[in-house]
Amino acid sequence: MDTNVLHAYVNGQFVPEEEATVSVFDRAFRSGDHVYEVQRTFNGTLHGLDGHMKRLFKALHYTRIDPLMTPDELGAATTRLVEHNSKVAGPDLDLVSCQVITRGSTKTLLSGPPTVIIYTQLLDMSALARTYLLGKPLITPGVQRVPAASLTPRVKIANKMSLMLAWLEVSALDPEAQALVLDRDGNVTTCAPGSGFLFIVDGVIHVPNRRNTLDSSAMGFTLELAAQLGIEVREGDYTTFDVYNADEAFTTNTKDCIAPVSKLNGLRIGTGRPGPMYKRLVTAWSEAVGVDIVGRAVGLLPVTEREELLAAARTT
Amino acid sequence: MDTNVLHAYVNGQFVPEEEATVSVFDRAFRSGDHVYEVQRTFNGTLHGLDGHMKRLFKALHYTRIDPLMTPDELGAATTRLVEHNSKVAGPDLDLVSCQVITRGSTKTLLSGPPTVIIYTQLLDMSALARTYLLGKPLITPGVQRVPAASLTPRVKIANKMSLMLAWLEVSALDPEAQALVLDRDGNVTTCAPGSGFLFIVDGVIHVPNRRNTLDSSAMGFTLELAAQLGIEVREGDYTTFDVYNADEAFTTNTKDCIAPVSKLNGLRIGTGRPGPMYKRLVTAWSEAVGVDIVGRAVGLLPVTEREELLAAARTT
Amino acid sequence: MDTNVLHAYVNGQFVPEEEATVSVFDRAFRSGDHVYEVQRTFNGTLHGLDGHMKRLFKALHYTRIDPLMTPDELGAATTRLVEHNSKVAGPDLDLVSCQVITRGSTKTLLSGPPTVIIYTQLLDMSALARTYLLGKPLITPGVQRVPAASLTPRVKIANKMSLMLAWLEVSALDPEAQALVLDRDGNVTTCAPGSGFLFIVDGVIHVPNRRNTLDSSAMGFTLELAAQLGIEVREGDYTTFDVYNADEAFTTNTKDCIAPVSKLNGLRIGTGRPGPMYKRLVTAWSEAVGVDIVGRAVGLLPVTEREELLAAARTT
Amino acid sequence: MDTNVLHAYVNGQFVPEEEATVSVFDRAFRSGDHVYEVQRTFNGTLHGLDGHMKRLFKALHYTRIDPLMTPDELGAATTRLVEHNSKVAGPDLDLVSCQVITRGSTKTLLSGPPTVIIYTQLLDMSALARTYLLGKPLITPGVQRVPAASLTPRVKIANKMSLMLAWLEVSALDPEAQALVLDRDGNVTTCAPGSGFLFIVDGVIHVPNRRNTLDSSAMGFTLELAAQLGIEVREGDYTTFDVYNADEAFTTNTKDCIAPVSKLNGLRIGTGRPGPMYKRLVTAWSEAVGVDIVGRAVGLLPVTEREELLAAARTT
Amino acid sequence: MDTNVLHAYVNGQFVPEEEATVSVFDRAFRSGDHVYEVQRTFNGTLHGLDGHMKRLFKALHYTRIDPLMTPDELGAATTRLVEHNSKVAGPDLDLVSCQVITRGSTKTLLSGPPTVIIYTQLLDMSALARTYLLGKPLITPGVQRVPAASLTPRVKIANKMSLMLAWLEVSALDPEAQALVLDRDGNVTTCAPGSGFLFIVDGVIHVPNRRNTLDSSAMGFTLELAAQLGIEVREGDYTTFDVYNADEAFTTNTKDCIAPVSKLNGLRIGTGRPGPMYKRLVTAWSEAVGVDIVGRAVGLLPVTEREELLAAARTT
Amino acid sequence: MDTNVLHAYVNGQFVPEEEATVSVFDRAFRSGDHVYEVQRTFNGTLHGLDGHMKRLFKALHYTRIDPLMTPDELGAATTRLVEHNSKVAGPDLDLVSCQVITRGSTKTLLSGPPTVIIYTQLLDMSALARTYLLGKPLITPGVQRVPAASLTPRVKIANKMSLMLAWLEVSALDPEAQALVLDRDGNVTTCAPGSGFLFIVDGVIHVPNRRNTLDSSAMGFTLELAAQLGIEVREGDYTTFDVYNADEAFTTNTKDCIAPVSKLNGLRIGTGRPGPMYKRLVTAWSEAVGVDIVGRAVGLLPVTEREELLAAARTT
Repeated sequence: MDTNVLHAYVNGQFVPEEEATVSVFDRAFRSGDHVYEVQRTFNGTLHGLDGHMKRLFKALHYTRIDPLMTPDELGAATTRLVEHNSKVAGPDLDLVSCQVITRGSTKTLLSGPPTVIIYTQLLDMSALARTYLLGKPLITPGVQRVPAASLTPRVKIANKMSLMLAWLEVSALDPEAQALVLDRDGNVTTCAPGSGFLFIVDGVIHVPNRRNTLDSSAMGFTLELAAQLGIEVREGDYTTFDVYNADEAFTTNTKDCIAPVSKLNGLRIGTGRPGPMYKRLVTAWSEAVGVDIVGRAVGLLPVTEREELLAAARTT
Repeated sequence: MDTNVLHAYVNGQFVPEEEATVSVFDRAFRSGDHVYEVQRTFNGTLHGLDGHMKRLFKALHYTRIDPLMTPDELGAATTRLVEHNSKVAGPDLDLVSCQVITRGSTKTLLSGPPTVIIYTQLLDMSALARTYLLGKPLITPGVQRVPAASLTPRVKIANKMSLMLAWLEVSALDPEAQALVLDRDGNVTTCAPGSGFLFIVDGVIHVPNRRNTLDSSAMGFTLELAAQLGIEVREGDYTTFDVYNADEAFTTNTKDCIAPVSKLNGLRIGTGRPGPMYKRLVTAWSEAVGVDIVGRAVGLLPVTEREELLAAARTT
Repeated sequence: MDTNVLHAYVNGQFVPEEEATVSVFDRAFRSGDHVYEVQRTFNGTLHGLDGHMKRLFKALHYTRIDPLMTPDELGAATTRLVEHNSKVAGPDLDLVSCQVITRGSTKTLLSGPPTVIIYTQLLDMSALARTYLLGKPLITPGVQRVPAASLTPRVKIANKMSLMLAWLEVSALDPEAQALVLDRDGNVTTCAPGSGFLFIVDGVIHVPNRRNTLDSSAMGFTLELAAQLGIEVREGDYTTFDVYNADEAFTTNTKDCIAPVSKLNGLRIGTGRPGPMYKRLVTAWSEAVGVDIVGRAVGLLPVTEREELLAAARTT
Repeated sequence: MDTNVLHAYVNGQFVPEEEATVSVFDRAFRSGDHVYEVQRTFNGTLHGLDGHMKRLFKALHYTRIDPLMTPDELGAATTRLVEHNSKVAGPDLDLVSCQVITRGSTKTLLSGPPTVIIYTQLLDMSALARTYLLGKPLITPGVQRVPAASLTPRVKIANKMSLMLAWLEVSALDPEAQALVLDRDGNVTTCAPGSGFLFIVDGVIHVPNRRNTLDSSAMGFTLELAAQLGIEVREGDYTTFDVYNADEAFTTNTKDCIAPVSKLNGLRIGTGRPGPMYKRLVTAWSEAVGVDIVGRAVGLLPVTEREELLAAARTT
Repeated sequence: MDTNVLHAYVNGQFVPEEEATVSVFDRAFRSGDHVYEVQRTFNGTLHGLDGHMKRLFKALHYTRIDPLMTPDELGAATTRLVEHNSKVAGPDLDLVSCQVITRGSTKTLLSGPPTVIIYTQLLDMSALARTYLLGKPLITPGVQRVPAASLTPRVKIANKMSLMLAWLEVSALDPEAQALVLDRDGNVTTCAPGSGFLFIVDGVIHVPNRRNTLDSSAMGFTLELAAQLGIEVREGDYTTFDVYNADEAFTTNTKDCIAPVSKLNGLRIGTGRPGPMYKRLVTAWSEAVGVDIVGRAVGLLPVTEREELLAAARTT
Repeated sequence: MDTNVLHAYVNGQFVPEEEATVSVFDRAFRSGDHVYEVQRTFNGTLHGLDGHMKRLFKALHYTRIDPLMTPDELGAATTRLVEHNSKVAGPDLDLVSCQVITRGSTKTLLSGPPTVIIYTQLLDMSALARTYLLGKPLITPGVQRVPAASLTPRVKIANKMSLMLAWLEVSALDPEAQALVLDRDGNVTTCAPGSGFLFIVDGVIHVPNRRNTLDSSAMGFTLELAAQLGIEVREGDYTTFDVYNADEAFTTNTKDCIAPVSKLNGLRIGTGRPGPMYKRLVTAWSEAVGVDIVGRAVGLLPVTEREELLAAARTT
């Protein structure tokens, strides 16, 4: 691999990103017949790769796609790609890596080889600074969560149009907003386009019933940290009533780790600003991954923008 | 375009099929963030293209993807591609043409151009002969139809994993079977991997409630023909009870036009063979498109296979 | 009644509005144990009073409240109050009249007399001019319609908190917006805080399934006019997909009569402006009630505001 | 305040009950746009006021009504009213106090002040004696619980018509009966017109899933007492099958504290009489509030009625 | 067959009723693995036997039980039994005949012969007089209709425990009452233990959605008569609100033909007495079957009872 | 009782099996109006009779059938019958005993005596050997579990047609398959025709939510053994996704005790063969009941068949 060029992996080959393409006859294009996984690095090191591979292979077994690779092989290819691209990106940038596995070509349906893709994306943490300091607004969309009776939400399947619609619907109303998607019984599930959700009442973490949510690595790691900190966790069927009256609320995902929520449907959650439990959890995250998550995101901002943001965080 | 080579259309260019590729960073790969349409030719002429374009643009409006083309422009590009590829394929072969439009690259999310693909597939009608003469078995899977509250079924969105799972589940039990997918109330909806469903009771066509089904061109055309033939049509919530006791049942889709169903969950429908209403409707189809649909499919079979099949159709 | 003072009716007495009060022990306060009706005048004459009384007495029978009055007696008291208050208001103003009937005092539960209230409100049609010319935006809230299995939506029961929450949720995002409330299956039902909803596809009026909606007088009158105009009407289970792809959409209620919808969840409906079917229907309304509905609303605006509004209506 | 007259609190003023009124233009009348709370005294002292205020302010936040008072201020006004009215009532009577907060006048919608009411009611415990000794019959109505997806059941909102209908439906069949309201899945939820429900199997308290029920103070206090007594509590989805086969069943509410259930739909629960667990719990209640709850209710009866009731309790 | 003794048919033999037995190893006993049909005679002649046989064979196909008889053979055996038993019963009595077909013995599961039973019951129409003149009360139970997704309601399957529980629940509250069973959405379906339901609003017959109800012969015949009389029929999803506000309501079943409903949950329907539409329909029934249905039922009463009943019918 | 003849118990009498019959007028035949229980012997001794009697009497109370016997009396009659029939069967055979209690004769509805039946069946364990060694395939049918809102699944009621249809549907596709029945939310519940279901993930037993399942003795006993072995048990809402990715899965019922599952919908579970947890649990079962369950079943096979089966178990 040319050490000056970002690469991707396509069906066994490491190729420069520009050459990383797939035939239009791939089943991804006509059917959405594929699964995927996403991880990120901290200081150039992939976090929790084994867990991600385990979840990916559950998705593959469930969708009856045979990748013709073992989890170890796919993990090794990912690691190699990340190591290469990290060097290209330089020591100051983190990466998100993503595996996509499709059922292969429409032309050889069910008999041909799968398509296996690995690529990375540069991670600009400064884009997260505003959310870390001020919190993000959530809005409940009209679109409901796809029920588990139709398709499991527990693993990453590349059928995200319902979540996309939820997100497009709310971001048309507030460009900063994410969608807090409800199930048909009005229970909160997950945030669109793609984050876990949890909230705090009286010092206890509340997480939505897992039958409606991704077996999320970022959520799982957050709950591990909570256990280490002695914070109680309850899983259940919660509605907007619970969230409106929560003390704090957060989202989790691979890229953001954990981010505070400022309000739901225009109604502030708690003080509307990152609270003490957020600080405790993001500190634990930072220690665990060896990066001051909020500090780094803020630190990467241009000075003026940073000052304005810090002022905003103080005054409201 | 080289007149000896099948081509495809990718983002404004007609390219040989082998060169028709899309970057792995396309949103199709990680999110399934795209819509599509499918048509076929009869004797080299596209059937119902305008209706397909109209439905495609409803899908685009619903998913908030702007193709940066008009329906006429997309239709014209399709027609041009089909004309070219039909010549390559020769006068005896029909084509299926497919448009795929994605939200574009993950790298330019919501601000970059969409990806627009058109490709064709050669249509081997002989593969349908067995179904036309003996009927296809249906099985009700455990996987439920994705409800309209989560994602509309009325247009073609490339999020077909739920239907794929339904089909994989039943074809693991009987390789010839398709899945007759139920909604959460046990109503029959559509067949997986992708066909409409209708059945006959006392000379009346019964079609599942359209809130659960694709606004299908093949179904729509069948019902137009039925109207011309003076056959009554009822739309409603029907269950397997209705189908088990139907006189005949059919599937419709772009490729097959209309095909008979032999049994449901191992229980024969009517005589278990194509019945008089099937013959009436497929004849009307054949006249409308200028092709003897069943005759052509059977005629394309090797002689021995054809004889065996015709014998099987007579004896059972 | 003092001819200079607006009055209200409370338990058999006509009293000046300032003296029109009810004990805090009324069951309205602790339980919401009451029903109501609303009508309006055009040029001082009540529109459709008999129909409103009929619906009110269905509500009373259903809730087992005996008003100790006949529909005719309640209608007569309303007419007398409206005649009086119309004179006070002067010839240029219209009125909304409202009857409220509660189960009576908590102190005499189920054995004491009901509370019967009639009051009027002055109707400022100029406030509707902006909506009539530019249309109103709708947003689908996360709050679901109260299902008929719990409480009928068909008559006016003073238990509107769910609709209030739906409206508050969306107006926090866009102060001009109303909520297009969905049922648990994602079907569109009614607009909050309180209007009927209909939309046009290919010249046909589509109205939500009546099992989820008020037996609305304004909707009913609109459909009567449509019948006279030879416009086809279909009732069914419709989702946001249908509305996004509609040619036009409207709301109906007692005060507005019929008003155009500009967009749903930020996505324009049709051209995003009042269309030809709207103009046809509001013209028929205007002729039927003897008032140029849009013209009057616009005419009541101050000149500058009117000009700006008309300019806005032309340019977008 | 005149020390001979019962007073109420209306918008900042303590007024004699007869003068405690609210304008018919209040939003309570046309929309049911208000929330409330209820407490009672034992020996003249309010029980659990802080908890009630906390729940009321959750209701206010959820419904976006700003009372323009703090919980402490509202609590203080309540305490002052209760102290005054307790003196008027005399040392032998207990009181129920109730706060009602509406969104204010229809004339100043969303911009005017709220309406704040506090009133009390005299509590005649003798009316409860029959239930305490013989148990109350429950009947499952056809009306279903309003689902949390439409309106939270967790706090007191003055939209009780659905519960009223449930109660009217069953009390038309048996005037002593209360309604054990089911959700759409047939799970038991709460009793109408307004009590919590719990039952005993093998010495364990079973309470309905809290997503369907009020965060009830009386229930909460009962479960606290159970914890002190070492009685296990399970929360879950229970159906009539569980209740029919329970050893004992009870209702809880502010006024009754805890009352035994004799039968469900005509089928006795356990022996059909207050059982050992009831006696244990009502004894704990009595000790905690300093009043022999059952003894006092029975003691307040006229002698003849008391003797008959005690005889009935012994013989059945 | 001994002409003095009532007989039954068991597996090909006509035997005296006392000897008509089935082994305890029959699958009816452990599984409820059987279907059935019921008809009645008018003046000794079976009514609508062919339709009943057609429905029975749909049930058999659906449940995959092969009776080893044709519809004609089973009909002929029934006719012969009815002729014999009618003679035994004498010319003044009518009969109900019933076919039961089980999957056979547990000992020969799926391989042995089915069990085929035909028996009759004497029909005492005087027991219906009270209902015909005064109407029957209905109550909505808590038990919900078994959904079609689990078992079709369209044919008679001997799995009636859910309906039995619904009926036992309401008859424990009012011994004369039948249960008007609701589905999970609160729609009225059918009456337990076993009658169809319809109601009248403004001269139009309303019948519950057929997806939830038996394809009832008595209902079907009623609707045929209505068509002959030019009465409009609407099928839909109706709730108790519709029934409370109906002008009249009826039940239909094989034995009663058509019977009036007096009230629902204690609330009268219309006048609470048989109305003009009832009289029109029962007259049409009487003419069609050659029996004055109400007159005969009343005429069979003892004189005193008859006079009291007629007086009651006049005064209320 | 004749010591050479197997007997049954019918309404108080022990009679030879051939004479054990019930009148065709029994309510079992027309309504499925009965409940039942099933137990088995190990080495001639009934296992868990008291628990079965307790569950049976819950079923009787729920269905309002009075057996006119105590649990002890019914248990004693069962024990006596089993002792007798065990002697007839000889020392090497086990028995299944079954109690059936119906509401009695249609001729004396609700006033006559119930029908009480007890019978036994010889248990041929060799028929289970194949399943014990190779596992059984499961298929998810389209038929949904009857919901608890309609009829409790917690006790044995003779209304099994829905489960029969589920089983017939899948056994038509694979004669060895059982149906893993789903509820309307896609949660796994129970296996048809009649077994409990559990699965293993990471050494933890997962059982479906008990609101959807029988209070099964075999399952209960399995969980007791698991507790003794220190195996954790979780109860929850699980879908096919969980089962596809489980390490092992089992069914439990009275006859089989515990049996391994090989695959679901054609997709293997774990290795597709009995795993270590199965071996641990069946060993514990064997020790508890004093019979080597798998060993005995295999040992009863003819030698050739046994050898083939053992070879198959080794090679796959």
